[in-house]
Amino acid sequence: MSGDRRAPVRVGLLGFGTIGTGVAKVLERSADVIGERLGHPLRLVRIADLDTTRDRGIDVSGIRFDSDGGALVADPEVDIVVELIGGTDVARRFVLQAIANGKHVVTANKALLAAHGREVFDAAERKGVDVAFEASVGGGIPILRALREGLAANRILSLHGIINGTTNYILCEMERTGAAFETVLARAQSLGYAELDPSFDIDGIDAAHKLTLLASMAFGAELTSKEVPAEGIRGITPTEFESAGEFGYRIKLLGIAKWRPSESGERIEARVHPTLVPATSLLAKVDGAMNAIAVHGDAVGPTLFYGAGAGEMPTASAVVADLMEIAREIRRGRAGRVAPLSYLPEALRPKPLVPLGEIEARAYLRFTALDRPGVLAKITKLLGDDGIGIESVIQKGRGRGGESVPVVMLTDIAREESIRRALQGIDSLAEVTAPTCLIRIEEDL
Amino acid sequence: MSGDRRAPVRVGLLGFGTIGTGVAKVLERSADVIGERLGHPLRLVRIADLDTTRDRGIDVSGIRFDSDGGALVADPEVDIVVELIGGTDVARRFVLQAIANGKHVVTANKALLAAHGREVFDAAERKGVDVAFEASVGGGIPILRALREGLAANRILSLHGIINGTTNYILCEMERTGAAFETVLARAQSLGYAELDPSFDIDGIDAAHKLTLLASMAFGAELTSKEVPAEGIRGITPTEFESAGEFGYRIKLLGIAKWRPSESGERIEARVHPTLVPATSLLAKVDGAMNAIAVHGDAVGPTLFYGAGAGEMPTASAVVADLMEIAREIRRGRAGRVAPLSYLPEALRPKPLVPLGEIEARAYLRFTALDRPGVLAKITKLLGDDGIGIESVIQKGRGRGGESVPVVMLTDIAREESIRRALQGIDSLAEVTAPTCLIRIEEDL
Repeated sequence: MSGDRRAPVRVGLLGFGTIGTGVAKVLERSADVIGERLGHPLRLVRIADLDTTRDRGIDVSGIRFDSDGGALVADPEVDIVVELIGGTDVARRFVLQAIANGKHVVTANKALLAAHGREVFDAAERKGVDVAFEASVGGGIPILRALREGLAANRILSLHGIINGTTNYILCEMERTGAAFETVLARAQSLGYAELDPSFDIDGIDAAHKLTLLASMAFGAELTSKEVPAEGIRGITPTEFESAGEFGYRIKLLGIAKWRPSESGERIEARVHPTLVPATSLLAKVDGAMNAIAVHGDAVGPTLFYGAGAGEMPTASAVVADLMEIAREIRRGRAGRVAPLSYLPEALRPKPLVPLGEIEARAYLRFTALDRPGVLAKITKLLGDDGIGIESVIQKGRGRGGESVPVVMLTDIAREESIRRALQGIDSLAEVTAPTCLIRIEEDL
Repeated sequence: MSGDRRAPVRVGLLGFGTIGTGVAKVLERSADVIGERLGHPLRLVRIADLDTTRDRGIDVSGIRFDSDGGALVADPEVDIVVELIGGTDVARRFVLQAIANGKHVVTANKALLAAHGREVFDAAERKGVDVAFEASVGGGIPILRALREGLAANRILSLHGIINGTTNYILCEMERTGAAFETVLARAQSLGYAELDPSFDIDGIDAAHKLTLLASMAFGAELTSKEVPAEGIRGITPTEFESAGEFGYRIKLLGIAKWRPSESGERIEARVHPTLVPATSLLAKVDGAMNAIAVHGDAVGPTLFYGAGAGEMPTASAVVADLMEIAREIRRGRAGRVAPLSYLPEALRPKPLVPLGEIEARAYLRFTALDRPGVLAKITKLLGDDGIGIESVIQKGRGRGGESVPVVMLTDIAREESIRRALQGIDSLAEVTAPTCLIRIEEDL
């Protein structure tokens, strides 16, 4: 690497799919503003992808482009490796090799970091290189920087994020059209908004990966995504939107993390599930594939960060911001300015998760029951036996000829294990013909 | 200053009012998380304020506290000076002295930077110290960091900000209660939400200072607040909220900045004025004294940053974040990591402002006219003569006994100088009894 302060910092791209193409485009189109902010160019010098022939609509002449990822992460002409392969296998190997070779790494790979973050960050610290991953959560929204620096004077109290665009799109479309989940999913797949195997998104796994990173940074917690309970949106029916709307709520798949100190020590909540949010809250206004993260700090109070959570150019915006930050450090001959997870590695500690059963919240319950006299009484009695108060009830229509009807209730604040216990009894009633749908409610947004 | 990496970085506080007290509180309450993020303490070692006796509800024992600001900025025991005096006179002198003495500076003083930013930043660069000012815009919202780093890969296309909490509070209260501006202002003053001399806020001057900083950073523009046209909210009447609501809008005092390239060169828009924003936009949902800044970048697309724009603890959150950033650099023996205005000083250029007359937008017009036959025809003819199309009209009630009535119109997109010309003619009609109220409309939010 040249000592010349005006010499380019050289970038190698591992993976030349949608995001990789976006990164190449941003480096080219924004070359002037990048130069005016850094004082030197960021130059894409090498690309590795298994597909070296497909036309990405971008001129790669002058850039070494082959399928040899191993050679790229060892190339002495490359200062920073951008890992955009995805997954936890090949990506992990290349990232660790790049670090071992003294390369700084920028990645958008939340799955890798949520599973092997500690290994990657430790390797980077030992080697004295930086690992940056703004693009891994919230696409183009600079939320990790906010947690790491902008809000660093705060103890973070809670965090509520719409951090998966596919599920937010599906929920908005279900609400807008009144169509069933399967119908909207199929349409989203045909439009390319959802993957052919959509479970990673719609079962909340992707959101759990992202929440793992957010919660680690917010609370200085050693956390892996396996520990984070995730519930997706498959169980949501059109009834939910209608009833939630009547109660003044909208339904969002949220990643939720809370700081829960007590006399017996510090615990945290971290969970992904569909949530009723007040229709008047800003999170309720986040439509389509957009993302937003509400962060509540003890000094700053409520904040919200909004933007495109995915897509070629927004994600590339975050990748190139990371490249610029690292390039500054390369030119200054340093690394490790800010701890990757906000807290210094030695301050990161395993922090026990509050089990879902101990969470206290109001709940939305949709029962599917035969329309017979006394059913409502049986349900409310079983809830009451577990100390669960009912705040409102909506029954939709009447069941003719022995049909089941949905009955929707909002409970008072209750402990989730009490609700679960009551639902066991309720769901084994002869008149209840399908498992009850439980959606947690978050009020203070 | 000690070379020990664990030794405290020492902070001196110039001005011990509301924000200064908040800074002292955050440094104390967040000492653990600050230490776990930095690896060393931030220690408040000296305070200067003219009032050394008032009880701020905070223990200052062990902190040198007197009224000698000059001694504080020269104190070899102080590494970073926090300037919270406000104003452009004493504050400017102390800030320049602190820099001359090799101190880094953190300030919340938008008025100072909007008027003398170049002088302050140049002095700091020559001396090799940092000047940070996150708290000067948007209170606790880390918006300057977002422009400087998180969105640095983007060419910023536009920026729309609710950046004055007092006026947002007054507008929301006027809308909620239907009361007149003077009534709501008086109430806000008695509650301490507005100053006894409120003109700095309600005439848009404070917002213009903040917009000057935002636009400089967004576009790499040399700009002072004197150049930024500012119009406040004194002319807004209850009719405006009612009519705007019927048209699907809310009224916000916005700071607006846009990049306006053309074949003859680059220009920018920068202006502060009441604005009709679509009721469905996120900005429309920003209530009370909260702030939000919508930033549109060419790669990231639309983003929004929301939080408390003022107040003791939110502002202190931003001040201490700056202290932490500078403390890192002190421990690393460096300064000048990121250019204060995002673009390198040598890349900052004067960029001509587009005159208000050349701005093209739809407009809200409220005429005050006697309810006589033919008045509407005269008004629409004068608008038509200047090529201004009318999209919708609302007339509120009938004027009995020669009373004036408000007539509200939304125009098609028109050049502002055409509208102004038409209004000159309209306002000199015998039937028009008060100057017409013009509010610009911004659609793409």
